[in-house]
Amino acid sequence: MRDIFNKTLQPSAQAVIASGLRPFYRPMATRDGETVVEGVPMVMAACNDYLGLAGDLRVIEAAAKALDLYGTSCSGSRSVCGTLPLHEELEARLADFLGCQAAMVTTTGFQANLSLSPLFGRGDVVFSDMANHASLVDATRLGWATRRLYRHSDMADLERQLAAADPDAAKVIVTDGLFSVEGDLCRLPELAALAQCYGARLVVDGAHDIGLLGARGRGVTEHFGLPEAVDLYTGTLSKCFGSIGGVVAGPADVITYLRCTARPFIFAASMPPAAVAAALAALHIIESEPERRTRVFRLAHQLAGQLRALGFDVGEAGTPIVPVHIGEAELCARLWKEVFDEGVFTQVVMAPAVPVGRATIRLSLQAVHTDDHLSRIIGAFDVAGRRLGLIPGPTAATVPPRRTEQSPEAGMRLR
Amino acid sequence: MRDIFNKTLQPSAQAVIASGLRPFYRPMATRDGETVVEGVPMVMAACNDYLGLAGDLRVIEAAAKALDLYGTSCSGSRSVCGTLPLHEELEARLADFLGCQAAMVTTTGFQANLSLSPLFGRGDVVFSDMANHASLVDATRLGWATRRLYRHSDMADLERQLAAADPDAAKVIVTDGLFSVEGDLCRLPELAALAQCYGARLVVDGAHDIGLLGARGRGVTEHFGLPEAVDLYTGTLSKCFGSIGGVVAGPADVITYLRCTARPFIFAASMPPAAVAAALAALHIIESEPERRTRVFRLAHQLAGQLRALGFDVGEAGTPIVPVHIGEAELCARLWKEVFDEGVFTQVVMAPAVPVGRATIRLSLQAVHTDDHLSRIIGAFDVAGRRLGLIPGPTAATVPPRRTEQSPEAGMRLR
Repeated sequence: MRDIFNKTLQPSAQAVIASGLRPFYRPMATRDGETVVEGVPMVMAACNDYLGLAGDLRVIEAAAKALDLYGTSCSGSRSVCGTLPLHEELEARLADFLGCQAAMVTTTGFQANLSLSPLFGRGDVVFSDMANHASLVDATRLGWATRRLYRHSDMADLERQLAAADPDAAKVIVTDGLFSVEGDLCRLPELAALAQCYGARLVVDGAHDIGLLGARGRGVTEHFGLPEAVDLYTGTLSKCFGSIGGVVAGPADVITYLRCTARPFIFAASMPPAAVAAALAALHIIESEPERRTRVFRLAHQLAGQLRALGFDVGEAGTPIVPVHIGEAELCARLWKEVFDEGVFTQVVMAPAVPVGRATIRLSLQAVHTDDHLSRIIGAFDVAGRRLGLIPGPTAATVPPRRTEQSPEAGMRLR
Repeated sequence: MRDIFNKTLQPSAQAVIASGLRPFYRPMATRDGETVVEGVPMVMAACNDYLGLAGDLRVIEAAAKALDLYGTSCSGSRSVCGTLPLHEELEARLADFLGCQAAMVTTTGFQANLSLSPLFGRGDVVFSDMANHASLVDATRLGWATRRLYRHSDMADLERQLAAADPDAAKVIVTDGLFSVEGDLCRLPELAALAQCYGARLVVDGAHDIGLLGARGRGVTEHFGLPEAVDLYTGTLSKCFGSIGGVVAGPADVITYLRCTARPFIFAASMPPAAVAAALAALHIIESEPERRTRVFRLAHQLAGQLRALGFDVGEAGTPIVPVHIGEAELCARLWKEVFDEGVFTQVVMAPAVPVGRATIRLSLQAVHTDDHLSRIIGAFDVAGRRLGLIPGPTAATVPPRRTEQSPEAGMRLR
């Protein structure tokens, strides 16, 4: 007789665990572009707090005030006892920020995307980019619509599939705004044109771009100068907003419909008071301090340029997500370890998050990174890359570990 | 051409909105068994913070300390930069508390249940109680296993379906521990016996019972004296733990498997520092102050007994969830409004959360409710029930509204 517990991990996951490298699930404490991993201070280059607001004293103070006033939880669904006036204020502010009639906030960004599923009805067709975030994928799986996956940002493939679908069916294209592994943007102008041509709605998950892209931080629509291109946004409050939670924003009647039908919205305890207050304070900073966006993009361009000059393949995306393409998972894990030993914490992305053979180290820049942080990230890749023979230069034997050179006064402390 | 936005609400939802009664999504601020709804102080009888810990100063202080130390968010997945030592401490403490080898915490309770889906593989069969929480339902929908729904707590129906299934298939029974609408417990002894007889695993969602049931608060297994009956637990930290987040606890290898495969765990920003610290502080209180459980059960028995004596149908569950069965949705909404006008906030449960014609007002008791709160809840139902002719006694004409009798000094304030 079979047992549901007799499942086995993919070989790649088994290999990572067996290797003892532990690139994942390390306990650490992170703040202001730095982290302490098991007692060792490091530069943090894998955190999605792009604007550095999770450690901003104004955001922390707003959260502390809400904690004091309202306690640690609403302990109930938005629909019952889980709506503070603060939740409504955040929804109104986010709708305004995104130029939408209405918005609803969810307890996580993952659940914001899952909350789309009531729109994906039987007979409808959802066209989904193959590189979309897991939560968008799961949203389409929770819906009842037919799913059509198109190759990542391949507009010809998308158009072929749109043309092949039942002309009478309701259609929707769903895409990440800024793709989280490669750091590339969706092709918004082409997507909008195809949506219009085939009568499809366009839904964009702005998890990584809302707050970060565009002069005022309004995301890919502002970046491309197409404020009307998107029919419905989703987003997260855990990245640029330095908090936790998600948002769905769009026409008022659609948001009302989702409030009454989206199970991950209705049947979940609401965003806790401190998280709502933190997001509100962050939104104020996002609106009032555009220099944070300028800085993180400048750092990202410097990093990409210098890694490219060293000989690494960092793609051409030009966003604060800088991928270092390696290919083979085991080699990628070794590079991760060498860079780790040089005092820089990065993220390995391997199958199943990306196709087998496309393993990547993903770097995330933050507005709170200093020029010194940037030098240390570049220095670590320089040494580690040469040691592994991935880039030209003196090889392992002549490149001593740099770890011991780090000085404790370099600012590696948490408050 | 059709449009995915052209969806319409169920007639019941439309009727509620059209009625203007607004039993749902009211902004309010709740603490210690009381709430302020649009400026009006009321008794809160619809909050799932059973032990009253979301407003406990020790829990708030622990959260404030974490906020100060670690900021408002980890801004990343548990697997990358989202694991604080605090997350691991909470997991170890919860595993120990539940008598399991290992536990993993998720960002919401909803996502704890969704994280089960990798266990529901192709060819497996999941047997699910029809009254299970929406998140368990969605977990089975995200999985690939065959789904078999059995009538609520109907062990004969479950056995019939177990017997009819492929004897070689891996099987799992999933059930709420304490069902959230009726307040009734799962039939754990029978479920465990059936699971053993048919070689099925038993998964229990302890969202409402962990922390509340059993002398030490360990939930339905402790209540029934069957510590070994459950193979895998899920639970939430937003109810008895006064925080936000969820937990999956069970054998170490199963938890490791889920850490590497469960998308709602891997691809979501982790529980924020303040929420982890709050849950840890709450766990300490859950373990050290059993008198909170005693008190909330005593209040619940008093409430159910007195409502029954007035003539209401409150079922026989005997837990801190006290349902007041009405039946017809519109009548239920009117009772909700009358009780609301008497200064007591309750929850209406209607289709689709329950079958059409089974509308209920759900009351939740808390250890922080005072005897005065209890009297006011009972008084409100007495007056409102007579006014609507639902219970015997003087009718509407002779029962004046009590609302103006409330004195501001009755303790209706938030800090």
